[in-house]
Amino acid sequence: MTRKPEPPPAATTIVPFVHRLDAREEAVWIAAIEAANPFVALRPLSALTVEERDSAPVAIVANPDPAELRGLPALRWVQSLWAGVERLVPHTPAQVAIVRMVDPQLAATMAEAVLACALYLHRDMPLYARQQRARLWRQHDVRSAADRRIGVLGMGEMGAAAAHRLAANGFSVSGWSRSQKRIDGVETSYGADGLTRVLRRADILVIVLPLTEATHGLISAAALAQMKHGASIINFGRGAIVDEAALLARLDEGALQHAVLDVFAVEPLPRASPLWKHERITILPHIAAPTNVETASRIAAENLRLYFRDGAIPMAVDRNRGY
Amino acid sequence: MTRKPEPPPAATTIVPFVHRLDAREEAVWIAAIEAANPFVALRPLSALTVEERDSAPVAIVANPDPAELRGLPALRWVQSLWAGVERLVPHTPAQVAIVRMVDPQLAATMAEAVLACALYLHRDMPLYARQQRARLWRQHDVRSAADRRIGVLGMGEMGAAAAHRLAANGFSVSGWSRSQKRIDGVETSYGADGLTRVLRRADILVIVLPLTEATHGLISAAALAQMKHGASIINFGRGAIVDEAALLARLDEGALQHAVLDVFAVEPLPRASPLWKHERITILPHIAAPTNVETASRIAAENLRLYFRDGAIPMAVDRNRGY
Repeated sequence: MTRKPEPPPAATTIVPFVHRLDAREEAVWIAAIEAANPFVALRPLSALTVEERDSAPVAIVANPDPAELRGLPALRWVQSLWAGVERLVPHTPAQVAIVRMVDPQLAATMAEAVLACALYLHRDMPLYARQQRARLWRQHDVRSAADRRIGVLGMGEMGAAAAHRLAANGFSVSGWSRSQKRIDGVETSYGADGLTRVLRRADILVIVLPLTEATHGLISAAALAQMKHGASIINFGRGAIVDEAALLARLDEGALQHAVLDVFAVEPLPRASPLWKHERITILPHIAAPTNVETASRIAAENLRLYFRDGAIPMAVDRNRGY
Repeated sequence: MTRKPEPPPAATTIVPFVHRLDAREEAVWIAAIEAANPFVALRPLSALTVEERDSAPVAIVANPDPAELRGLPALRWVQSLWAGVERLVPHTPAQVAIVRMVDPQLAATMAEAVLACALYLHRDMPLYARQQRARLWRQHDVRSAADRRIGVLGMGEMGAAAAHRLAANGFSVSGWSRSQKRIDGVETSYGADGLTRVLRRADILVIVLPLTEATHGLISAAALAQMKHGASIINFGRGAIVDEAALLARLDEGALQHAVLDVFAVEPLPRASPLWKHERITILPHIAAPTNVETASRIAAENLRLYFRDGAIPMAVDRNRGY
């Protein structure tokens, strides 16, 4: 075995870690980020000196208490460990740039979840589960994937990866986003007119939008009423994007076929919620695209390295757009 | 509109259609095959003259009564509308070549069903369905598809298409067949040693084998005992390939995680079967790869056209192999 040369001695930089994780999760993240960047030491706020608090230009955050961020007066940016930053945006001081987690591994996991649930609906698995409970043997025609149009709302890293994967597996895909985007092999549209067009044509509607002022309640009773009879919905964005009561009503009327819900207005979904026992709803506990500690730590560590080397702050959230 | 020139006048050839379909299915197939080859007229046995019966060299068959085939003394070959011919092989006169349906569309439909059910297991959909019934919100780690090894038993048109599709979607795939095969991007093995290797390594075992003397009971109690703890099974071949009682026992012990069964020893699955209510079994009513009337009719019609033009009989089933 040849021994690697010792790294040159370097000052360890203390970085605040502001979160509401439990002790085990905190330890896992600290170990992973410090392993990926040995010149950084993550410290919870309580372990910082007054001088460290007063001078820290950057913090790693995971759903922080906003009051705690205001206790870091020199803060220029925060690196979120999560992709969704809807709770950070309204409360983070205006001069602090918010960098959300953009991880290609996360996009691949989301694309896989979208494909899994699209196939689950396309191949009538919920219907066959109901038949199984009734001991009923009845075959239904298999439609071709090309005859099944999937509308994907949200064409960010995750939505684009999902649209690509669906198209590669033979589905007809329509992508929709706030602003115009071009994705190979995917028909895209944008704006209010584009949304109406996607809602009217989709056999399966997949929501991969961030929660912003513009997407809160976007899939309203009126939007649901535009959908094809017998269409289905997959919500992998945020619960508050869909009007839950209106969705339930459409499912009960039989206007919509099935919903796969991974996100809810309140999480964990309360035990008393009527969604749990609805036979046309598949409940997932927010697992479509869980953060991967290993890959996300490498990305956060690399962002810190570039900042401390060059002063470069990664692309930040647009506070007006909300993502 | 320009009118197409009339086709030259041609004698219509009467072809016996020997089946146990209902009247509606019979009419659909006759219309589709005659549309695909206008010089052929399909007739049920009861509509043939004695001379037509005595001289017919070819028949279209769909699960025929063997006694009826013996009433066609000049028969040289039969075109089956189904891919599975296990009931034709033992009873068809030895001099009659059996041509089974080989349809690329069927292979694509099977590959899609395999991918749908592999993702359903990979992303823990049966576990989340049990949690939903218990109103339980609990997240489980998402494994990478590359860390999930899928063993595919059967490397014919359907198995090869399935293995390809799984590999294209990131899974690690091991293919197994009776005789040696090479499939791009798939590790393949064959024979008894190869089977043991695949059984021991697979996280998900997919059966896409034909039913033959060699595969009847192949997935015995001993074979199931070789499988990894916590592995799952998808049977899209034939029910009699798997020892149903041994499979139930392994599921009950918790040695196997889940089974997706589309085929059964007796179909339709009897209402009294304990499989219906088993929480670790997903029952599908033989829908993984239903015959597509349109594409299968075109293939049967083309085979008839080539035979009547050149006397060419398509590649027939090897009676010793059974497929």
